[in-house]
Amino acid sequence: MKHTVTFLPDNITAFVNQGENLLTAAAKAGVYVHACCGGDGVCGKCKVLVKGEVRSDKANLKQEDWDKGFRLACRSTVESDVEVTIPELTTKGGKALKRKPKTTRTVSAKALDSLVGKWDIDPPVSKLYLELPPPTIEDNIADMQRVMRGIRQHWPDPRDPYYDLPQLIKYLPRTLREADWKVTLLLLRGRHKGDPFRIIDIEAGDTTGKLYGLAVDIGTTTCSGVLINLHTGEVLAESSGYNGQISFGEDVISRIIYAARPGGLKALQAKVVATINAIIDDICRQLIISPSDIAYMMAAGNTVMSHLLLGIDPKYLREAPYVPSVSEFPLTRAAELGLHAHPSTRLFLYPCVASYVGGDIVSGAHACQMAKSDKVSLFIDIGTNGEIVVGGKDWLVCAACSAGPAFEGGGIQYGMRASTGAIEKFKIHPESLEPMLVTVGQTKPSGICGSGLIAIVAELLENKVIDQQGKFRHDLDTPRVRQGSSGWEYVLAWKHNSMIGEDIILTEVDIDNLMRAKGAMYAGYRTLLESVGLSFADLEQVILAGNFGAYLELEQAICIGLLPDIDRNSFYYLGNASMLGCQISMTDMNRFRERDGVRQLMTNMELSESPDFMQHYMAALFLPHTDMRLFPSVSKKLEDV
Amino acid sequence: MKHTVTFLPDNITAFVNQGENLLTAAAKAGVYVHACCGGDGVCGKCKVLVKGEVRSDKANLKQEDWDKGFRLACRSTVESDVEVTIPELTTKGGKALKRKPKTTRTVSAKALDSLVGKWDIDPPVSKLYLELPPPTIEDNIADMQRVMRGIRQHWPDPRDPYYDLPQLIKYLPRTLREADWKVTLLLLRGRHKGDPFRIIDIEAGDTTGKLYGLAVDIGTTTCSGVLINLHTGEVLAESSGYNGQISFGEDVISRIIYAARPGGLKALQAKVVATINAIIDDICRQLIISPSDIAYMMAAGNTVMSHLLLGIDPKYLREAPYVPSVSEFPLTRAAELGLHAHPSTRLFLYPCVASYVGGDIVSGAHACQMAKSDKVSLFIDIGTNGEIVVGGKDWLVCAACSAGPAFEGGGIQYGMRASTGAIEKFKIHPESLEPMLVTVGQTKPSGICGSGLIAIVAELLENKVIDQQGKFRHDLDTPRVRQGSSGWEYVLAWKHNSMIGEDIILTEVDIDNLMRAKGAMYAGYRTLLESVGLSFADLEQVILAGNFGAYLELEQAICIGLLPDIDRNSFYYLGNASMLGCQISMTDMNRFRERDGVRQLMTNMELSESPDFMQHYMAALFLPHTDMRLFPSVSKKLEDV
Repeated sequence: MKHTVTFLPDNITAFVNQGENLLTAAAKAGVYVHACCGGDGVCGKCKVLVKGEVRSDKANLKQEDWDKGFRLACRSTVESDVEVTIPELTTKGGKALKRKPKTTRTVSAKALDSLVGKWDIDPPVSKLYLELPPPTIEDNIADMQRVMRGIRQHWPDPRDPYYDLPQLIKYLPRTLREADWKVTLLLLRGRHKGDPFRIIDIEAGDTTGKLYGLAVDIGTTTCSGVLINLHTGEVLAESSGYNGQISFGEDVISRIIYAARPGGLKALQAKVVATINAIIDDICRQLIISPSDIAYMMAAGNTVMSHLLLGIDPKYLREAPYVPSVSEFPLTRAAELGLHAHPSTRLFLYPCVASYVGGDIVSGAHACQMAKSDKVSLFIDIGTNGEIVVGGKDWLVCAACSAGPAFEGGGIQYGMRASTGAIEKFKIHPESLEPMLVTVGQTKPSGICGSGLIAIVAELLENKVIDQQGKFRHDLDTPRVRQGSSGWEYVLAWKHNSMIGEDIILTEVDIDNLMRAKGAMYAGYRTLLESVGLSFADLEQVILAGNFGAYLELEQAICIGLLPDIDRNSFYYLGNASMLGCQISMTDMNRFRERDGVRQLMTNMELSESPDFMQHYMAALFLPHTDMRLFPSVSKKLEDV
Repeated sequence: MKHTVTFLPDNITAFVNQGENLLTAAAKAGVYVHACCGGDGVCGKCKVLVKGEVRSDKANLKQEDWDKGFRLACRSTVESDVEVTIPELTTKGGKALKRKPKTTRTVSAKALDSLVGKWDIDPPVSKLYLELPPPTIEDNIADMQRVMRGIRQHWPDPRDPYYDLPQLIKYLPRTLREADWKVTLLLLRGRHKGDPFRIIDIEAGDTTGKLYGLAVDIGTTTCSGVLINLHTGEVLAESSGYNGQISFGEDVISRIIYAARPGGLKALQAKVVATINAIIDDICRQLIISPSDIAYMMAAGNTVMSHLLLGIDPKYLREAPYVPSVSEFPLTRAAELGLHAHPSTRLFLYPCVASYVGGDIVSGAHACQMAKSDKVSLFIDIGTNGEIVVGGKDWLVCAACSAGPAFEGGGIQYGMRASTGAIEKFKIHPESLEPMLVTVGQTKPSGICGSGLIAIVAELLENKVIDQQGKFRHDLDTPRVRQGSSGWEYVLAWKHNSMIGEDIILTEVDIDNLMRAKGAMYAGYRTLLESVGLSFADLEQVILAGNFGAYLELEQAICIGLLPDIDRNSFYYLGNASMLGCQISMTDMNRFRERDGVRQLMTNMELSESPDFMQHYMAALFLPHTDMRLFPSVSKKLEDV
C-alpha cells in the first residue's frame, strides 16, 4: 500500500510504502532534514511537524513538542497520507537559513516489464508420474526398461530418455517395489531443442506437486540464493550470507593469489561450497524440505568465482593476456562439488565472457534482454571490478574496469561495508552545512559505505564545501570543515553521536580515492562507447545492475561523474540482475536457451591495454569531469548555487 | 604354414599347422593312436613310423626303434608334409586287432567371413591434432573456447562437441601451455548418429598415432581382454585370468547369494574390478603403455556379471519373475568403477536381454550377424548356464537353460576345469578298448574336463562299452571296465600313468550327470524351436559360441545328443563370440550401432516355466535320445558296429 508524503515548505511529494521510515523517505525524496545520529533517535534534531497518521515513538522528544504534533522523523513510520513540515533552521541571529530546492529525484520503480519482459513456466526439469504394471513371468523386462516403456506411453518425445548411472539404477529396483510400481520421474531436458530428456531421479509415489529450483548469485563478497516453485515461478524462500572466501582475501585478485598457495584452491572451493550449503540449509529449514528435493540449481558468478566453485585454477585469469580456462561451463552434478544436493541434481553456471566479465554480467545482460533490444543500452555493474556492457541486438561490447575498493568502503579512512551503522544516505544543509545522516539499520553511525560516500561527496560538491578537484574550501564558517592529521576534512558525526566513540570524518584522500574509482568507471563507458563509434548522446537506456546500483541516488551519482549526465528517464535500476537472470532461465527454458547467444554476442575489450582508456581516465579525475560539456545539468547546478 | 599329414593304414589326411603336435593332430583327425599318459612321453605307447620331417625327442623310445624311423607321436611336431603309419595292435594271439574306420570329422576353419562379415575401421573414439595460436591480448578467449574454435576449423561436424568437467578443464590450461598450444584431442562419438562428439581428453603434442581400445569378456569363471589398435583393428596384446569372484562361489547363483551378505556386493564388484585391472596391467606391461592410454573399453558379460561390475544388486535376477534392474547399460566412466583407466575413458557394456541371457550372448549374436541373416540359425553357448538363440533377421527367440556344472567338470568324480592335466581328447581302440588320451598341456592326466567328458562318453557309447542308458556292459574282456565303490566304471588311466597317483575313472554317476546336462541343452533347443513352430530340419546354421564350443568334437557331441544330428556343414565354431562382438563394435561404429536392434529383436523365453521343456528334457535323458529318429546318423553308426 502506497501513501503520499508531502514535505513542506518545499512542497515535495513522495510516494512511499506503508511503514516507510520518514527520515528515509525524506532522504530518498531529496528533502533535507537535520539528522546527525544516523536515525538512532538520540540527537533529536530531525524533529518535524506531522499531519496525518504516523507510528512514532517519543524517544527524547519533549512532551511539549509531542503535544504540538512534532515527531522525530527517524522514529516515525508512515501509516497514511501525511503532510510533513520541516522547521526552518535559523542563523544565530534568528534569520531563517536558506533552504535549497530539491534537485535530486528518485527514479520510481519503473515497469521493469518493458526491460525484463515476461517469461513462461517451462523449466529445464519436469516430473512425470507413472503407474507401471508389476512384472510377471510373461512380462519380465528389466526394471529400467519397464520405466522406459511407461514413459513411451505418456511422453510426447519419440526418443527414449537417457538415464544416469549408477546413482539411479542402484536404488531403482527397491524404489519401484516399495512404491508398488507407482513412481514419479524427474526429467532433465537435453541441451539443445530436440535432444532427448534424461531421467535424473525416480521418487516413490506421486511427487509431481513438488518441483523446486534454486537460483544462486555467487558474489565475491556476498552469496545469495532464492528457491523457486518451478510449477509457478513463485519465489518461496530466500537466504544469503557472506562468501566464506573473504577470510582469504577481500577481492578476486587476492583470492587468485591465495589459490596459488599449497591447498589454496581446495580451501577456496570448500569455502564457497560451505557458503552455498548454508544458504541451501537455511532455505530448506524455512520450508521444511530436504536439500535433495531441489531439482535444479542455476548459478551465476564472476569468472574467478566460477572457476573457484568448480575447482579450476584461476591463475591464468590474472596473467596477461588474461585467459579463462573455460567460459562455457558444462552442466555439473552439484553433489560432486560438495553441495548439499541429490546426487543427480545438476548445477548450471552462467557462461563467462572474459577473465573479468563473468557469468553474473552475462546473466544480467540476459535478464534485461538488451541483446534483443533495438535500443542502444549501457549496462553497468559498479564495484571494485566494475563491469560495463554496451550495445543492442546486433552487437554488444563489454569490459571490466578495476575501480579499486572505494565503492565498498575500501581505502576510505572511515569506510566500511554497507552493514549496520554505515552512513548510506546524506544531505547537507546549504547554509548551516549541517549533515542529515541516515545509516543502515538506523543506528548511530560507525562509518561510510559506498553509496554514502557518493552521497556525501555529491552534497559537499553541490554545496561548494569542496571544489571540483575535491579540495575543501578553507573559508567556511562551520566547525565541521577543519584541518586534521591528514589535511582538510569534514566531520560527518561528532564522537558523541558516533557509535565508535570518535569523530567520523571524510578526508581529501578519501575524496581522491572516490574520484579514481568513479573516474575509472566513467572512462570505461566512454572508451567502450567510442570503440564502437558512439557517444553518451547515443545511449537510449542505462541499466544499473548489482546491489550497489540499487542504493545509488541517481542525481548524486551523476553529480560526482559516476554516471553520465543524460536524460534521467533513460535510467533503470535492475537490482541483482545476476540473480534475476538465473531465476528467469530456471523458469523458462526458451529464455534459458538464449543465454549462449547473449554470451556470444558480447565482445570483450581489455581496457587496461587501451591508451584511450588512460586518457579518459585522467580526464575524469575531477568532479564531475574536466570537460564540463559532458555534464550540462551538473554544470548548471553548480553555477546556480 | 599348413602341412599335410597322412595317417596310415586308414589313409586319413589332415591339414595341420606347422609345429602341430602329432598326437593332437591324430586325435583331431579322429585317428586312434594308443596313448595312455596324456602325451607326457612316459608310457611310450604312441609309437608311430614317420616319413617326412618332424621335430621329435627320443624320450624313452628304444634306439633301435628310433633308428627305424619310429617316433613318439606325443613328442613330435609336424615340420613338413608327413606320412604317419600307426602300428597295428595285435591280440595276445598275434592277430591284428580290427581298427575302426574314421567316423569323426573336424570341421575345418570355415571362412567365418560369411558369418561374421567384414567390418570397417571407424571406432567410437578418434583423435584430432590441433596447432592453436597462443592467446594474445586481442585474442584472449578462454582456453576451452580456443580449442573449440580450433575444432571448428578442422572438423566436419557443424555442432560443437561437448566436453567433460572437471577432469578435463582442470588440466587443460597447463597442458596447452606446456605443449606450446599443440595438442591432440580424444573425441568420443555421440550415442546416436548426428549427435555431437564429446572431447574426453586432451594430450600434449601429436599423439594421433596411438589409439587403443580394450575389449573385455567378463566370464563367470574367466575374464579376458584384448587390446586393439583402433587405427587398424589389429590385436596388439591379450591377457586373461580367473574371475576373482570365484572365491565367493563358482556359479552365478552362488554369487547372487553372496551379494546379499553384508558387504557382499561391494566385495564381488571389487573382485571383478581387480581381475580386469590385472588384465589391463598385464597388457600394458606387454606393450609398454600406460592404462591411461586406453581410449575406450568395451565389455560383455552375462547379466549377473554385468550387474556386479556396475555394483547393482543382482537379487531380483534370481527371484521370480526374474527381472534385471537394467538391461541397456549407460556408458560409464571406467575409472568410476575402480578400473585402471583415464578418468574420462568410457566403458561400454553390452546390453542384456533377460536375467540369464546376458550381454555376452547379445554380443555373440551380434558378432555372427544372425539378426541380419535370411537363414534360420541356432546360436549355442554351452555351459553351466547354456544360452540358446534361434532365428534370423525377422525374429529371434532366446532362452537360458540350467545345464548344471558337468560341462565344467562339476559333479564328475574326476572332473576338473580345462587346465593342465585335464583329459580333453579321447579315443578308444575298438577291440582292445585301450584309451588314447590327450591332456591339456600334454602332461600325465589328472582328471577330465568338459570336452574330454563328452569325448569319453561318445567313444564308450560308439564302441558299445556303455549302452544308450549310459550303463556299462558287464561282459567285456578288459580290466578297464570294472566294478568300483560306486558301481561300474571305466579306468581312463592307471595310477602309474596318472599325475595324481590314483586310477582316474569314469563312473555311471558321471555319465548320468553328463546326460542331464546335455539333455537340458537339447531340450532347450527343441522347446525354443517348437515355440516358433520349427524343428531341427529347419535349421540352416548352427553356431557354436564360447570357449567350450571351440573344443568340442562335433561328431562326439552329436553322438551323445548334445548337438542336433543335422548336416555337418551347417555347423560353425565361433569361439569366444562375446569377445568377438566387442572387438567388432569397438572398431566399427556402424556395426556398433546395430547392437540395440539385435537386443530388441531377441524375445526371451523362461524355459523353467515351460511344461514342454520338462517333457523334452525327460526324453533327452538317453544317449543320444529316446527318439532315435532325431539322430539318424548316430543311429546308423551304433547299428554298424
